[in-house]
Amino acid sequence: MNQKQFSEAVSSVTVRDTFWDPVMEVTRTQMIPYQWKALNDELPDIEPSHCIRNFKVAAGLIEAEFDGRVFQDSDVAKWIEAASYSLKWHPDETLEKEIDDTVELIIQSQQPDGYIGTYYSINGLEKRWTNIMRHHELYCAGHMLEAAVAYYHVTGKDKLLQAMIRFVDYIDSVFGPEEGKIHAYPGHEVIEMALMRLYEITKEEKHFRLARYFIDERGKQPCYFENEIETYHNEYPWKDSFFQFHYYQAGAPVREMKEAVGHAVRAVYLYSGMADVARETLDDSLYEACQAMWDSIVERRMYITGSIGASAYGEAFTIDYDLPGDLVYGETCASVGMVFFAHRMLKLSQRGEYADIMERLLYNGTISGMALDGKSFFYVNPLEVYPKKNEEVQAFRHVKVERQKWFACACCPPNLARLVESVGSYIYTQREKQLFINLFIGSEAEVFYGENAAHITLETGYPWNGKVKLIMECESGQEWDVALHLPDWCREFELYVDGESAHYMQSEGYLYLRQCWRGRHEISFNMKMEVREVCSNPKVRDNIGKVAVMRGPVVYCLEEEDNGADLHCVEIPSHAQFEETYRPDLLGGVVTIKSIGRKVMLEEASPLYLEDGWERYEEKDLLWIPYYSWANRKAGEMVVWVRKR
Amino acid sequence: MNQKQFSEAVSSVTVRDTFWDPVMEVTRTQMIPYQWKALNDELPDIEPSHCIRNFKVAAGLIEAEFDGRVFQDSDVAKWIEAASYSLKWHPDETLEKEIDDTVELIIQSQQPDGYIGTYYSINGLEKRWTNIMRHHELYCAGHMLEAAVAYYHVTGKDKLLQAMIRFVDYIDSVFGPEEGKIHAYPGHEVIEMALMRLYEITKEEKHFRLARYFIDERGKQPCYFENEIETYHNEYPWKDSFFQFHYYQAGAPVREMKEAVGHAVRAVYLYSGMADVARETLDDSLYEACQAMWDSIVERRMYITGSIGASAYGEAFTIDYDLPGDLVYGETCASVGMVFFAHRMLKLSQRGEYADIMERLLYNGTISGMALDGKSFFYVNPLEVYPKKNEEVQAFRHVKVERQKWFACACCPPNLARLVESVGSYIYTQREKQLFINLFIGSEAEVFYGENAAHITLETGYPWNGKVKLIMECESGQEWDVALHLPDWCREFELYVDGESAHYMQSEGYLYLRQCWRGRHEISFNMKMEVREVCSNPKVRDNIGKVAVMRGPVVYCLEEEDNGADLHCVEIPSHAQFEETYRPDLLGGVVTIKSIGRKVMLEEASPLYLEDGWERYEEKDLLWIPYYSWANRKAGEMVVWVRKR
Repeated sequence: MNQKQFSEAVSSVTVRDTFWDPVMEVTRTQMIPYQWKALNDELPDIEPSHCIRNFKVAAGLIEAEFDGRVFQDSDVAKWIEAASYSLKWHPDETLEKEIDDTVELIIQSQQPDGYIGTYYSINGLEKRWTNIMRHHELYCAGHMLEAAVAYYHVTGKDKLLQAMIRFVDYIDSVFGPEEGKIHAYPGHEVIEMALMRLYEITKEEKHFRLARYFIDERGKQPCYFENEIETYHNEYPWKDSFFQFHYYQAGAPVREMKEAVGHAVRAVYLYSGMADVARETLDDSLYEACQAMWDSIVERRMYITGSIGASAYGEAFTIDYDLPGDLVYGETCASVGMVFFAHRMLKLSQRGEYADIMERLLYNGTISGMALDGKSFFYVNPLEVYPKKNEEVQAFRHVKVERQKWFACACCPPNLARLVESVGSYIYTQREKQLFINLFIGSEAEVFYGENAAHITLETGYPWNGKVKLIMECESGQEWDVALHLPDWCREFELYVDGESAHYMQSEGYLYLRQCWRGRHEISFNMKMEVREVCSNPKVRDNIGKVAVMRGPVVYCLEEEDNGADLHCVEIPSHAQFEETYRPDLLGGVVTIKSIGRKVMLEEASPLYLEDGWERYEEKDLLWIPYYSWANRKAGEMVVWVRKR
Repeated sequence: MNQKQFSEAVSSVTVRDTFWDPVMEVTRTQMIPYQWKALNDELPDIEPSHCIRNFKVAAGLIEAEFDGRVFQDSDVAKWIEAASYSLKWHPDETLEKEIDDTVELIIQSQQPDGYIGTYYSINGLEKRWTNIMRHHELYCAGHMLEAAVAYYHVTGKDKLLQAMIRFVDYIDSVFGPEEGKIHAYPGHEVIEMALMRLYEITKEEKHFRLARYFIDERGKQPCYFENEIETYHNEYPWKDSFFQFHYYQAGAPVREMKEAVGHAVRAVYLYSGMADVARETLDDSLYEACQAMWDSIVERRMYITGSIGASAYGEAFTIDYDLPGDLVYGETCASVGMVFFAHRMLKLSQRGEYADIMERLLYNGTISGMALDGKSFFYVNPLEVYPKKNEEVQAFRHVKVERQKWFACACCPPNLARLVESVGSYIYTQREKQLFINLFIGSEAEVFYGENAAHITLETGYPWNGKVKLIMECESGQEWDVALHLPDWCREFELYVDGESAHYMQSEGYLYLRQCWRGRHEISFNMKMEVREVCSNPKVRDNIGKVAVMRGPVVYCLEEEDNGADLHCVEIPSHAQFEETYRPDLLGGVVTIKSIGRKVMLEEASPLYLEDGWERYEEKDLLWIPYYSWANRKAGEMVVWVRKR
């Protein structure tokens, strides 16, 4: 296969899905217009972002100081990217005009040497690259490049892309192994992925080389950042931290990294870029580095919801098996980044474990970041809240029990938006004579094999049931594989082709159907979807003696709204009876689960410490809802991990 | 009874106890000389404290800048106080000379108006009282006053006392309700208690009035501190905190305080002072305020070890039933202060519950602050540690798994020292014709009743067994009560007087023996001491489903040294069999407890999440040691609360 095919396969997918359509729709109709107002300082009850205003200042249209965070430009970029994806399935002239105008403004702000970035364009270009560690210039460049690529793919318009190519050429003149260039790498990764997307379009070797340089240079000792701090007398906020330069993934060269450490978003953006470069170079050592980071996260440092980053301090990974549900960070951006990483690992090596994690994230720890109405957002995605504690106890105050309208650092909402609006691109991958169905999302797609094309229609009630129908309309007959992901949660399934029990080959989490496909074919894949109780590895201290409830890929939780307060008092039996009901009226339509548990009774006047044997229990009907849909009603307690009796 | 009798009863007690003698001895021979070196900057591996040097500068003997914390003088005061108590039971000319020299130096530093305090004496007296909230001037004054009182009581020398009376008179001229005086109160309490101790000696109404003023003025709105911040442009570190001025117990007048909040040491020092004033004034509203704070702590905000303060942020109380064993603060100083509070509540109202808490603290959360060899100290007293997490995860890094040699803020070691060296003063209280035995600590005491005296000898193997013998030698016959504390843990006991089963009256946690005592009498009090499993109130979320093991007043724990790692995997049955052994060779001589539990087995390669029903258990012999003696061998895991199967 070549890179081009990927892009084409991706661009030809249209999502038509009962689960995802509403998510994409609220993102398009609520979040994207809301952010447009935020970028333009048009929200009366929100602190001005200064985003567009900064570009106007940098373009010389108005006179003012730079304002906002040093990475403020990236919000504009992410908005363009998300809005572009939405145009693909919902053309909108007004929105396209807004993007075009914004592109014009960005180009007006571009410096003669190609540089784009309002912070230094306003504050003095001579100060560029004096704080690569913390000033996010390459991060903003990376996001703008992603935006340019997306807009180009969707609309064919290449104005922003051309401007960004000029900017990249300038960056290439500044960074590299050659003498006289700066031997450094971004303080916040993302440009690595973006350069590889650019390279997919341009096929210009230098674009790929720059991505690879940033990856290969990273973490070399002595550390560039340490030097930079001394040279420019910059602040170093992690001086007393345990992770030191590992916060920036700069503590060791990427091939020597032992564990996923430091800032979780930065980390998974880096690993995603590494996987992109590894796919191009077929560099085993880099692939092994990716796999080591993957294993570190997936085997030891990931919440059951797919969320990552156990510590608010540094928004970072901590240590193996440290996964507190209440002290958690689990930033929405990190979940989004983890989907990028999983997707790229899948492109590197078509193994079901990568698709499993992508699915775990898409139905749990990503979309939990947005309210069902698209109007409020979580930065932090906890697995357990107790409002009084989250409000009053300092160590838990970063965990909000209600989604917020917006954030001073507004990275998460547009990040989630660009994921949601492009979710179609994660469903299929294609390799020569193989079409892989990674996700069960209702969709239509055009697939090209050799000179021929096939039209694919995927119909499903996923994730509420395990029934998947794939209708293939093939121009002409040829033997190739259709490979269906067999999710890790699935223990029993039936597979039919054209009504007949299918012959399949099972390997690495996929079911391969090989035959000559000609004309219309119908594949029916019925996975038995039952409620199951899941445990953590006992090394996860916070979850010992506890279970979580899952159904298919969906993690469930108990909310105070349905189950009363004091959820820590609830216990469920090891082999509980579960009753599943599809409730179209509830939370946008969800399958709820009922079970019987018991609850320790509280007595008002009882002492703080008492002799064992005092407990009284009451039988307790429990109602479980999908984790992603929590906090859409009244604020209250919520818990995923429940004690097992 | 009058106040004088208290002091006399206290000063006549000599401890001769198998448990406490070694603790007092290592404090005297290790901690006190070590701190003397620290005060004099004579420790090669410790940052200089500048304590004595600051006094030399303030006295004009050398020229230098002030150095150290703003409350550095208080270390000198606490050292004098602890050293003074030690002189009482172990005369030491060299030590007494060191104190005398220090007193001379302090007096040399005293300003013409009576002020003592090196920070402003060096930095400019005109700046005094411009940051009462944070600059600890009244705190240092309070500790120096406590030192002066102690030294006077033990040695009869009144030089420091007279100097402090001059200082107090100066303070009295600055603070008070009168116009022209500052209407404020200490940012860190302690002087309230100290003034009441001074008043016991001087009987000067103004000393009492000043203590009462500081208590009555506190927390009035508008808040003095808020005003002070504005007037002097001072920093306010708690601006974004939840507790705001409650950090300083300045959020509400003391009689309107609802809960124990804010900085835990400050809080219990205040409550202790309130209890002292309430005892003098017989002010019901103040007594009720004390009782409300007592209930808040003891019923809802105290660890099983007696430690208080669940949050490192602000070294503070948090919310009801929030008692995490691992995120804990539980500062040693706060435990010491809680003993002060309990003792004063006991003097206010002779109820066993106060003695119970005093005992809980003395055998658990106070002495855990010092190594058995007296050479290292805990600031924070956790109930659960996992070294890797405590080293690498930011939120848990304030919890040390090994005691430290010393601290930059060295408040805890000398605070514990002054408690330990004066532990005898907590054993007895006397009220007219009643002698109360609050604690079972081997000791001799002279008791005065009317014109007569009795010599009391208390012999016991407490806390390792519940046998107590009280020998009374009474000058002449008179009817009065001897009242023995019946600890809350005790379910069965036998009580004999002169070999005969005793007639007693039981009330409020005390057993009253009333008779005419003449000549020699022997009281035998045998409490049945068994191991018991204790639960938390189920509102304590962190302890739900868990038990702790206690024996008598002693809380036990599991250490990795005896039980291997992964202590979170351990479970014990509800009605476990326990085997108790006195081990003279271990940890200075302790009763250890053996029980059989089980442990979840860990398998190396198992996944992070797996379907329920995977657990395998192994039988596990458990060895429990007293909590206070943990961390005296190799660093490793430790846990108090263990899951119940």
